[in-house]
Amino acid sequence: MSDLRVTVWGEYRHEHTNKAVADVYPKGMHEAIADGLREGGIASVRTAWLDQPEHGLTDAILAETDVLTWWGHQAHNDVDDKIVERVAQRVLEGMGLIVLHSGHHSKVFKKLMGTSGNLQWREADEREIFWTVASGHPITDGIDEHFELPAEEMYGEPFDIPQPDTLVFISWFQGGNVFRSGACWQRGRGKIFYFRPGHETYPTYYDTNVRRVILNAVKWAAPVAGEKINVRNAKVPLAPITKG
Amino acid sequence: MSDLRVTVWGEYRHEHTNKAVADVYPKGMHEAIADGLREGGIASVRTAWLDQPEHGLTDAILAETDVLTWWGHQAHNDVDDKIVERVAQRVLEGMGLIVLHSGHHSKVFKKLMGTSGNLQWREADEREIFWTVASGHPITDGIDEHFELPAEEMYGEPFDIPQPDTLVFISWFQGGNVFRSGACWQRGRGKIFYFRPGHETYPTYYDTNVRRVILNAVKWAAPVAGEKINVRNAKVPLAPITKG
Amino acid sequence: MSDLRVTVWGEYRHEHTNKAVADVYPKGMHEAIADGLREGGIASVRTAWLDQPEHGLTDAILAETDVLTWWGHQAHNDVDDKIVERVAQRVLEGMGLIVLHSGHHSKVFKKLMGTSGNLQWREADEREIFWTVASGHPITDGIDEHFELPAEEMYGEPFDIPQPDTLVFISWFQGGNVFRSGACWQRGRGKIFYFRPGHETYPTYYDTNVRRVILNAVKWAAPVAGEKINVRNAKVPLAPITKG
Amino acid sequence: MSDLRVTVWGEYRHEHTNKAVADVYPKGMHEAIADGLREGGIASVRTAWLDQPEHGLTDAILAETDVLTWWGHQAHNDVDDKIVERVAQRVLEGMGLIVLHSGHHSKVFKKLMGTSGNLQWREADEREIFWTVASGHPITDGIDEHFELPAEEMYGEPFDIPQPDTLVFISWFQGGNVFRSGACWQRGRGKIFYFRPGHETYPTYYDTNVRRVILNAVKWAAPVAGEKINVRNAKVPLAPITKG
Repeated sequence: MSDLRVTVWGEYRHEHTNKAVADVYPKGMHEAIADGLREGGIASVRTAWLDQPEHGLTDAILAETDVLTWWGHQAHNDVDDKIVERVAQRVLEGMGLIVLHSGHHSKVFKKLMGTSGNLQWREADEREIFWTVASGHPITDGIDEHFELPAEEMYGEPFDIPQPDTLVFISWFQGGNVFRSGACWQRGRGKIFYFRPGHETYPTYYDTNVRRVILNAVKWAAPVAGEKINVRNAKVPLAPITKG
Repeated sequence: MSDLRVTVWGEYRHEHTNKAVADVYPKGMHEAIADGLREGGIASVRTAWLDQPEHGLTDAILAETDVLTWWGHQAHNDVDDKIVERVAQRVLEGMGLIVLHSGHHSKVFKKLMGTSGNLQWREADEREIFWTVASGHPITDGIDEHFELPAEEMYGEPFDIPQPDTLVFISWFQGGNVFRSGACWQRGRGKIFYFRPGHETYPTYYDTNVRRVILNAVKWAAPVAGEKINVRNAKVPLAPITKG
Repeated sequence: MSDLRVTVWGEYRHEHTNKAVADVYPKGMHEAIADGLREGGIASVRTAWLDQPEHGLTDAILAETDVLTWWGHQAHNDVDDKIVERVAQRVLEGMGLIVLHSGHHSKVFKKLMGTSGNLQWREADEREIFWTVASGHPITDGIDEHFELPAEEMYGEPFDIPQPDTLVFISWFQGGNVFRSGACWQRGRGKIFYFRPGHETYPTYYDTNVRRVILNAVKWAAPVAGEKINVRNAKVPLAPITKG
Repeated sequence: MSDLRVTVWGEYRHEHTNKAVADVYPKGMHEAIADGLREGGIASVRTAWLDQPEHGLTDAILAETDVLTWWGHQAHNDVDDKIVERVAQRVLEGMGLIVLHSGHHSKVFKKLMGTSGNLQWREADEREIFWTVASGHPITDGIDEHFELPAEEMYGEPFDIPQPDTLVFISWFQGGNVFRSGACWQRGRGKIFYFRPGHETYPTYYDTNVRRVILNAVKWAAPVAGEKINVRNAKVPLAPITKG
């Protein structure tokens, strides 16, 4: 695990246009997320963002990325379809993908899920309590049966996602809503984790539990090293294995 | 269930260019599939095909379709992206979708799955044995613990699909391969069933068991009548339900 | 479905010892549950309870039961292990089972789940809001995206159950807890639905939504009529199906 | 992972009564399985067997066991119910459990599954081909898209198990059968993997791929170190977390 290579992708636009966001995340949200991973012992963490050439996600960079984290919000439509295709293809080939907060509406998440990613929401500085419902799952390592954030944006059900392979966390919100806030899927060889918290105006990505969950998720989503199966070009005529 | 409205969609091209196919399916494969459903008691079965305007899948027709069955093979790329989008949206809204055989590579199936749909294959007139692994599932009604087809095209694992919500059948092939040949997923409000058999040169869609499985699947995939949940426009700000 | 035969099983002891319960359920909780099903159009509904011979669950009665509902609380240990075995065996053979509220600690539920059924709880007259997370599932027919009960006992995560095959409802409680309050599993040929609400001191089983969910669940859990697969005596030597 | 502590449990009776078995496994099947794990780098591997006091599974030994592997066949009924209870409780608390071959009918597996574990079988020296259907899962590390054993006992569907959380391998048998031969579940905090091969008269547990799968499974099933959630005594009254 020591040689796990993570790329933290951020939209990195709110930080330039909204002083409240810049105050909370002076180096950008992606740097706060990346710092959490570095602090957690991941040696190789790089960042990339929307306004870089190819959104910072060149073939070369993706080829060197074991797990990609994704935060986007207001500019999902500015993400080039070719890059979306490239990222999704890498996930099918085994790259892990951690989708954060408003990334539920990112092109790449919707493409890999096959659903709209729609949900309900409310901005009202609400208390959020996360309940662990998959005790024993690697993503819960070091996490208590519940933890909380003092104020966050509310995301509520119905959340239009395929039923998760594993549901890890459910959130409670002060205003009467619940949300499947931590959920795992596999697509091709790649592991995907969606993790709800992280509205841009709150210091969520400095929170100890949130950082620990993202760290755990990155480790869980690491590609299997010895994997020998090719899902990219599999549709080829096959010789009989046996005379049957 | 008596008023279930089914649209059977066929590519309907092999039948015009390959005499072997026309000999087996003189009215087209879609008509054989439709006949099986009519025989099974579905009163309202219509057919549609690729070379009709809008591929026969206008908004009006889809609005009157509870369950759509899909068979395509050589012309997946001729299916208009707008129609694919329209069909997928209807599935998210609750229309059932039964994807048959080479439909694993159709645009609409790949879009809803988020994976490549890749698999391995071989044309060698192989015996196929279907084993029921979800005894008690409505799709197995009237089906024995196994049934077989004397000759079919082989489809083999690895099959690049998301892990099914329910795996119903596994196929055994003479040449040494296995395949998850009956599998269920839900996307949005819509139920999806993939069913493997149906290579164009075999009389598979006249087979009693195959017809029964498709009939069962159509009934299972029917929309829930009283459904009140809107997944299309769900991302709207929400008033607090409680003062919490 | 018109000939679906349901047996509603109740512990029927609180009603004799606790006036508050008898006031809410003068005919017993089981009769209120049964009335809800009759009202919903199930013609054949009988009741059975703990203090009857064989707990009212003779071989003859179980043989004529398509779906059994189970409410028990203070006397789980008084249920005879032989009857538990008999009920569980019938579930494996296809009988549906709807486990209600404190039935999470019943012997039969724990036996079929393989887990402790442990959870956290609090009696504080709390408001409970149910959120539908499986839009399109038959159990949600006629149910809105959320519904609520003004006061109920709280049940909270972690709930020690196997990950559900389908999670249908999540409950929100005033005091900060969430709960997987509607969940489906299959064991053998039998379908199982656990539904959370129903503390004995609240008029929960008169509630329109609660009745509708139980009615839907009973229909969903009905055995597949044409099922031909024997799971009871399956371990027998098998002749080769093919010379392979 | 370096400090992972594994206990390999074997019935260890066939070896004393059947010369064919003793010839293949002169030190006992459990020692062959244990050797495979040692060879794979697991430093702490001990063995235990049926005819030891408490079947070699004292509280002290289980307390020091992170993952237990289980092979039993002819003497399932000789396993003391108290030990079964003890092992199952340890699984709920987080100990991993790898159930091998005829262990599908062991008391502990049936208890944790809630089903009969029934299946079909045939002893006919059949070729078995394992197909990987969960590419990207840690248990497939170093495993190819298929591997085979030249001769094994056949196990065939229907296999009466709860639908797996993850299905990893499907086996093909010469005589026309298929089997879900590698499957994962979680119960409480504990991870369970069932792996089909290993009839006592074949040298299966010397096979490179079989050893690799068991090694991978043991690593996958390791308890989560930092787990803080108590599932044993969870049913206690809970103070409100929020004034809600």
